Amino acid sequence: MFVREKIMRLADRIERLGSETAFTVSAEAAAFASEGNTVYPFHLGDINIMTPANIMDAAERAMREGKTRYCPNAGIPRLRELLAENVNRSHGINYTMENVSIQPGGKPVINKFLLALMNTGDEVLYPNPGFPIYESQIAFQGGKALPYGYVEGKETFTLDMDAIERQLTPRTKLLIFNDWQNPTSAECSLQELEKLSELAIKHDLYVLCDEAYYDVRYEGKSISLASLPGMAERCVILYTFSKKFAMTGWRLGAAIGPQDIIDVITRLNVNDESCTNHFVQYAAMEGLTGDQAPVRKMLDIFKARRDVAVDILNSIEGVRCFRPNVTFYLYPNITGAMKRKGFDDLEAFRKALLHETGVSVCTRLHFGHPLEGEKDCYLRLAYSGIDIEDIREGLGRFKAFVEG
Amino acid sequence: MFVREKIMRLADRIERLGSETAFTVSAEAAAFASEGNTVYPFHLGDINIMTPANIMDAAERAMREGKTRYCPNAGIPRLRELLAENVNRSHGINYTMENVSIQPGGKPVINKFLLALMNTGDEVLYPNPGFPIYESQIAFQGGKALPYGYVEGKETFTLDMDAIERQLTPRTKLLIFNDWQNPTSAECSLQELEKLSELAIKHDLYVLCDEAYYDVRYEGKSISLASLPGMAERCVILYTFSKKFAMTGWRLGAAIGPQDIIDVITRLNVNDESCTNHFVQYAAMEGLTGDQAPVRKMLDIFKARRDVAVDILNSIEGVRCFRPNVTFYLYPNITGAMKRKGFDDLEAFRKALLHETGVSVCTRLHFGHPLEGEKDCYLRLAYSGIDIEDIREGLGRFKAFVEG
Repeated sequence: MFVREKIMRLADRIERLGSETAFTVSAEAAAFASEGNTVYPFHLGDINIMTPANIMDAAERAMREGKTRYCPNAGIPRLRELLAENVNRSHGINYTMENVSIQPGGKPVINKFLLALMNTGDEVLYPNPGFPIYESQIAFQGGKALPYGYVEGKETFTLDMDAIERQLTPRTKLLIFNDWQNPTSAECSLQELEKLSELAIKHDLYVLCDEAYYDVRYEGKSISLASLPGMAERCVILYTFSKKFAMTGWRLGAAIGPQDIIDVITRLNVNDESCTNHFVQYAAMEGLTGDQAPVRKMLDIFKARRDVAVDILNSIEGVRCFRPNVTFYLYPNITGAMKRKGFDDLEAFRKALLHETGVSVCTRLHFGHPLEGEKDCYLRLAYSGIDIEDIREGLGRFKAFVEG
Repeated sequence: MFVREKIMRLADRIERLGSETAFTVSAEAAAFASEGNTVYPFHLGDINIMTPANIMDAAERAMREGKTRYCPNAGIPRLRELLAENVNRSHGINYTMENVSIQPGGKPVINKFLLALMNTGDEVLYPNPGFPIYESQIAFQGGKALPYGYVEGKETFTLDMDAIERQLTPRTKLLIFNDWQNPTSAECSLQELEKLSELAIKHDLYVLCDEAYYDVRYEGKSISLASLPGMAERCVILYTFSKKFAMTGWRLGAAIGPQDIIDVITRLNVNDESCTNHFVQYAAMEGLTGDQAPVRKMLDIFKARRDVAVDILNSIEGVRCFRPNVTFYLYPNITGAMKRKGFDDLEAFRKALLHETGVSVCTRLHFGHPLEGEKDCYLRLAYSGIDIEDIREGLGRFKAFVEG
């Protein structure tokens, strides 16, 4: 490699750019595996199930038919229509294709929502623990990131509504909301959603509804904040094909919301990447309109994995884990187990767990900085990328590690 | 569609966000065609030739093999290696995979280069006429865009080196350079490149080398500014698979440069889109290592189209057009033809040409604001998306329109 005499003078804003430290965990796990060790991968929210064959067939067909040229910046009109219809059915909103801008993944919606709506110094409420890119993008783009947490209840985590209300000022402009939450798997009650919508309307907040896990649920029905009265006009939905259709590596998602903001987001598409892969959008149409049996089958698999994982985790002394009805994440409280093993450092516990058992997990620390007064310790386990036998074996070792 | 009572308060920066007005021309052309008219599409740099079959085969194989999950943020290591080797062969540089970050297209490199290196108020030299996204992104991100033009010579356009030198100040930090230029098809001589590198080193400029058309040439060999002594350490190459392999709609490109900046660009990948479509990267590997006959065949087709187009254009009274050895664009001077037809407004001429002949083109106005003292009028014709018989027919009508 050629050697440079000095380092480029990077832009100042780069100091504020965060990352996903979960990728460091992946690298550690890979290094450990490369030494001949067995690794039980609970760290990444990827899916070890094939994309449904009908979706792959549709991609191939479109590619062979020459859908290999540029398509419109906002996406193929028919896909935008289908997605609007699909979301209308689930959400009870009246979107049309003008409300939809196709994106290369769900993640670009975070960036573009903030670029379109946040001025320097604007305050943005965001979940912490939460997907780390929210805080990174808010700070990178010159906003002020205000974290709100979740409170551990009896059967689930609940939104720390007080933290939201307490921090609202006239400078608070945006709320990032991730129901069916990563990492806690928290799901708001209708009452909580109503309270949130009341606050959003009263304080004139615009809301990013990150609905990446809207369809990843085992019972009941998701209710979107955007579907509450007066909310569609102030919500932008982050939609992704990644989790629902096992299409993580395809990179396909959409921003769905009021047309004025969607138009701006599409103008950002023009500037940032022109358009999203053309034939992949045909695959997405098949996903939306084709046989839904593979999707149901995947959810059945996830549910079985969840139950095995939760049962074993709860059998471990000093570990407490809810059985969430949504997402494919578990967020066990391991404060007791750490004490038992003599750890007071969560990261040290994680590394010891990896190196002594092969169980690779993320922790609370990969989802933001702990908030003031936060004392308990949590891991985040994803069961989307690990088979049930490996869950059994890995978590069995976890149990032995803590109790042995 | 649901109706909103008021418009969202967009971020102030959105006022500075430009677009590609060429897409408006596409829309006009489509509207004209939908009324039953024949359109001769010279307006867009898309390619009406299929992606080579071996590349599609590789994509399909990778998809069926399950390359449908996330891949590393910087791209598949093997693709990064192959691309480094490929560029080393053509450029005579010693890149390794650490110097390569895969992107969903070439365009994201513009955005990420500026995000990584430009502070608010920094001055950035950019070509005008030129790809309109440069100016848009510089302004959007708070930089000061300094345009430099091209001078019409006897057989080609040359870089207005004086405009570059004249505008250099201590605040000038970056240079955007698009050799094998869109829209003029200008190609710098070695002497010009040496002068540019001298200026870049003397004034400590970092350079974005937009090499989208590096391989789109009919004779001779491209010389990259990055390959001159001392330049690899201050250049970031925008590489794209779009034009060389007829993969415009696949959205695949790369940033290639010093590792410190590439690391930052990859961190931007983590924040913006996670990674680029996984199986598409296998298609790219086949493009780089497989049979190159389809690429040569495509260039032969382009060359034949170029010659027909240039010959007809030069046969039109009041039109003067070079025969560029690179890119698939023509930039004829039509000042005389406009005078002959009684037009003094370039946009009015373009619209009249479309509606009276079906010939759809872009003009100088789609590539930035005319510079002070700029008097002549130019069109930009792309011959990448139109077959030779249609070129003949369309430009024949163009000739009749002007001379009739």
